[in-house]
Amino acid sequence: MKLYTYFRSTAAFRVRIALHLKGIPYEPVPIHLVRDGGEQKKPSYRAINPQGRVPSLEIAAPGGPTVLTQSLAIIDYLDETVPEPPLLPKDPILRARIRAVAQIVACDIHPVNNSGTIAYLKSAVGAPQDVVDRWYAHFLRDGLAAVEQLIEPGPYAFGAAVTLADLCVVPQVFNAWRFKVPVDDFPKIMAVTEACLKLKAFADARPEAQPDAE
Amino acid sequence: MKLYTYFRSTAAFRVRIALHLKGIPYEPVPIHLVRDGGEQKKPSYRAINPQGRVPSLEIAAPGGPTVLTQSLAIIDYLDETVPEPPLLPKDPILRARIRAVAQIVACDIHPVNNSGTIAYLKSAVGAPQDVVDRWYAHFLRDGLAAVEQLIEPGPYAFGAAVTLADLCVVPQVFNAWRFKVPVDDFPKIMAVTEACLKLKAFADARPEAQPDAE
Repeated sequence: MKLYTYFRSTAAFRVRIALHLKGIPYEPVPIHLVRDGGEQKKPSYRAINPQGRVPSLEIAAPGGPTVLTQSLAIIDYLDETVPEPPLLPKDPILRARIRAVAQIVACDIHPVNNSGTIAYLKSAVGAPQDVVDRWYAHFLRDGLAAVEQLIEPGPYAFGAAVTLADLCVVPQVFNAWRFKVPVDDFPKIMAVTEACLKLKAFADARPEAQPDAE
Repeated sequence: MKLYTYFRSTAAFRVRIALHLKGIPYEPVPIHLVRDGGEQKKPSYRAINPQGRVPSLEIAAPGGPTVLTQSLAIIDYLDETVPEPPLLPKDPILRARIRAVAQIVACDIHPVNNSGTIAYLKSAVGAPQDVVDRWYAHFLRDGLAAVEQLIEPGPYAFGAAVTLADLCVVPQVFNAWRFKVPVDDFPKIMAVTEACLKLKAFADARPEAQPDAE
């Protein structure tokens, strides 16, 4: 497997955790989201992922290698094809609660705050840096406030086993730290992050541990 | 089941299609996203859904009624508990492709363009209407251009059966029409939308067919 990744991408970070947890070997292919106006926008990468985003996962398939996109879709694929350890429990209601927390991060926080959206906010809307900073903090904290109410740590976001929710929450906390937005007033999220970072899979998937880290 | 819904919400529209396709009876509870500053932000609704968004689905559970949130998590729950007709095929690679298209809409188009984000763009960023209009069109068309390349109509987004992808694409096209952004240069998306709208489940779930339609 080849993972098209960028060390700072929270979406790629989620998939890296899943690969490490499941012990799936992969070759990282760094795509630099900033250099030269963004390698992800080049035609050579758009031929791999028409959306021009990371992550993309190249996998073996009956007709030859094929590429999967969108971090949550990739993680579901990995969980369906390499079931151990499972990232979702069997109970449909609990699965839905875990998926909802994952989607608060992956749908309602991240895309509103990712590098492409922030770049557009600066260039096309003309927002100055202080307005951009408030934008980032507003959507981050609005989403995390809901996550804080919905998780049930023990010590991971939904009990004694790591789930999809942890794979989304922890990278988002790293992103908050990067942009210096306080999140330590969310005690449940902080406790979950601390518990997860004791696991080798999370530590190995961190931005700083990637070959393309700067 | 009670569905907290708003006729114009594309996320609620997705869940309404799933409920109609599977023949699950439900009681719609309208939450007006605009009136009085937004009913979804009131403490009475935040007690139901801490994120203050629609849709929310109240279901029966062993300990008494409980509420599920986030449209894609709700749809997965419905698909897992009422399997017919299935919204995803068995093949893991095809499932991942379908989920990716759903997530382009539900993660990368919708949250960047939903009423809360647009309201913040106007009030806190101070963007004038023409900048807001360009913002909406930019993120809509950027996402749909990728969807257009990834779907394989026949006549639905991924072949002869309706899937999760159709449940996301069709409401997004309705939203584009509402905001008068041209999308008819995406022939595959247009063909899929036309095919879906011939189905009673999609027609019954349309904004105009809802009891709270204005």
